[in-house]
Amino acid sequence: MARINGKTKPLGALGMLEDLALQVALIQQTCEPAFNQPHMVVFAGDHGIAHAGVSAYPQEVTAQMVANFLNGGAAINVFCRQHGIELLVVDAGVNADFDPHEKLIQKKVGRGTKNFLNDRAMTFEACRKAMWSGDEIVSEVVAKGCNVIAFGEMGIGNTSSASIITSILCGLPIEACVGKGTGISSEKSIKKLITLQEALKHHQLPETVNAMEVLSTFGGYEIAMMAGAFLKAAELQMTILVDGFIATSAFLVAHALQPAILDYAVFCHVSEEPGHTKALNYLKVRPILQLGMRLGEGTGAVVAYPILQSALSFLNEMASFEQAGVSQKQEALVDEA
Amino acid sequence: MARINGKTKPLGALGMLEDLALQVALIQQTCEPAFNQPHMVVFAGDHGIAHAGVSAYPQEVTAQMVANFLNGGAAINVFCRQHGIELLVVDAGVNADFDPHEKLIQKKVGRGTKNFLNDRAMTFEACRKAMWSGDEIVSEVVAKGCNVIAFGEMGIGNTSSASIITSILCGLPIEACVGKGTGISSEKSIKKLITLQEALKHHQLPETVNAMEVLSTFGGYEIAMMAGAFLKAAELQMTILVDGFIATSAFLVAHALQPAILDYAVFCHVSEEPGHTKALNYLKVRPILQLGMRLGEGTGAVVAYPILQSALSFLNEMASFEQAGVSQKQEALVDEA
Repeated sequence: MARINGKTKPLGALGMLEDLALQVALIQQTCEPAFNQPHMVVFAGDHGIAHAGVSAYPQEVTAQMVANFLNGGAAINVFCRQHGIELLVVDAGVNADFDPHEKLIQKKVGRGTKNFLNDRAMTFEACRKAMWSGDEIVSEVVAKGCNVIAFGEMGIGNTSSASIITSILCGLPIEACVGKGTGISSEKSIKKLITLQEALKHHQLPETVNAMEVLSTFGGYEIAMMAGAFLKAAELQMTILVDGFIATSAFLVAHALQPAILDYAVFCHVSEEPGHTKALNYLKVRPILQLGMRLGEGTGAVVAYPILQSALSFLNEMASFEQAGVSQKQEALVDEA
Repeated sequence: MARINGKTKPLGALGMLEDLALQVALIQQTCEPAFNQPHMVVFAGDHGIAHAGVSAYPQEVTAQMVANFLNGGAAINVFCRQHGIELLVVDAGVNADFDPHEKLIQKKVGRGTKNFLNDRAMTFEACRKAMWSGDEIVSEVVAKGCNVIAFGEMGIGNTSSASIITSILCGLPIEACVGKGTGISSEKSIKKLITLQEALKHHQLPETVNAMEVLSTFGGYEIAMMAGAFLKAAELQMTILVDGFIATSAFLVAHALQPAILDYAVFCHVSEEPGHTKALNYLKVRPILQLGMRLGEGTGAVVAYPILQSALSFLNEMASFEQAGVSQKQEALVDEA
């Protein structure tokens, strides 16, 4: 803190940049924090619930977008290139097969989850397997010298999973957590809400349900794998960039299992999905950006990354009052603590 | 618009990035906009009102910070280096002399303005001269091939000028436009407000006062020069990055003289100064960032710059649905227009 306050600027004048600098300094346990080998890992998985007509896009789009990521043409590719972030794509459970590719990590748990309107989305065993895969992926990335990691996702239908997970884990009515996803019509939004209400009624989870039960009943393979990845990244004391609504729903699961991960997480943006604002409020965290984005893929996390770099830059590069020969304030600041 | 909507993402899913991409495309009159030779010009000037005890810092800090800018140790230097933005510093009217320096532009109109508590801050002639200098500086920067420009400022006491200018030009009571500046105490805030109320009473400007009258009575040399620079940059069809409260007050003056400049301006952040939010509301614009910054120097503009670059990157580099072979939406979007 003394290092931040000694810089040639009024106390607190860099606002949230100062909070971010302090957080990363604490994560890295140094006054000179630095990011090395930043990575974005995009987890892709298909969802049985997509067959219930909850999305604006057909299920095949998940696989098509994975191909788009591998070909470098998606928004996440563009933003990762802009900031020198290494992009990896994980097949967590897409309903399609992919040829081997240097950017693709094969961790397919199944060819899409079951439709949770009638069945549990995945077995406990599949859920644990997905989480373990997330753990493994993070360990491999860390071995490359990475200390800052972001997670993204692709999965047609996954805002439906995220809505239910957020609703249960934050103790909110489902109506408060359902939005337009990638852009369905108002009419279809109502259908989506009714579908999710039916699913909740069908499974009748007890009020004191644990996060693993919620995840396996309503989650997706990509969400489970990301939850495992969050836990491992925090254990390895990495700075973790949390993206939008789906990523935050995976974070909620990980947070329920290990609340201490909050210290390692930077919430990068708040999306247009109504449930996202509520999840961030539940976690008592403030996002860096509020740009009305709702694309997923991890785009919000990567677009916010340079802001986090600015936080480290000012800490490491700015002169102190003493170094610059600048007069300090004339008055005490007792009333501004 | 068709180019933005054809990208492999749901319609509107990149939120404000899409608005920014469209704005810059319109400014540059091309579907493939690009930024060349980005510049940040920081205008520095001293204020007679600083002697009335409205700031937390002594007047000498203006000159000391100019030296800090030239030595590369200030926050604005750090952020400009991070994003490859050329930084120029203008002595618009600092109460000190500087040795020549490659980054320093000498345009001193006077050694600080007069204290507007008793006198008009500057003569009409000095005000026009300052605005002309802003015009000249922008012309020189454009000659280097620059098409995106940001303006910053340094001047102990200049939130007092900005508060009065904002209050008059937005038709707001002065109480709504006074804040803590660089961080004065609550007690000193009240003194600042009373001082500004007295100044307004002393000058008794007519209700239908014009912007030049307001600027010369209460402005600073750096504010007047920046107002001139805004006008020239818009005339030359540049993308203009508007920083915080002081920069926006200069923009309000320029906007009163030529409302069309709004099309060229990107409002980069909203500062902690209460008058800034009100000025942005008056102009009916939304800032990119809301990070609680209140440092000035142009820091908010430069920290937001990579977001604007992201907006151009997605437009120029993302694949279209057609290129990527991704299925489009299944439903019409009539209810989302």
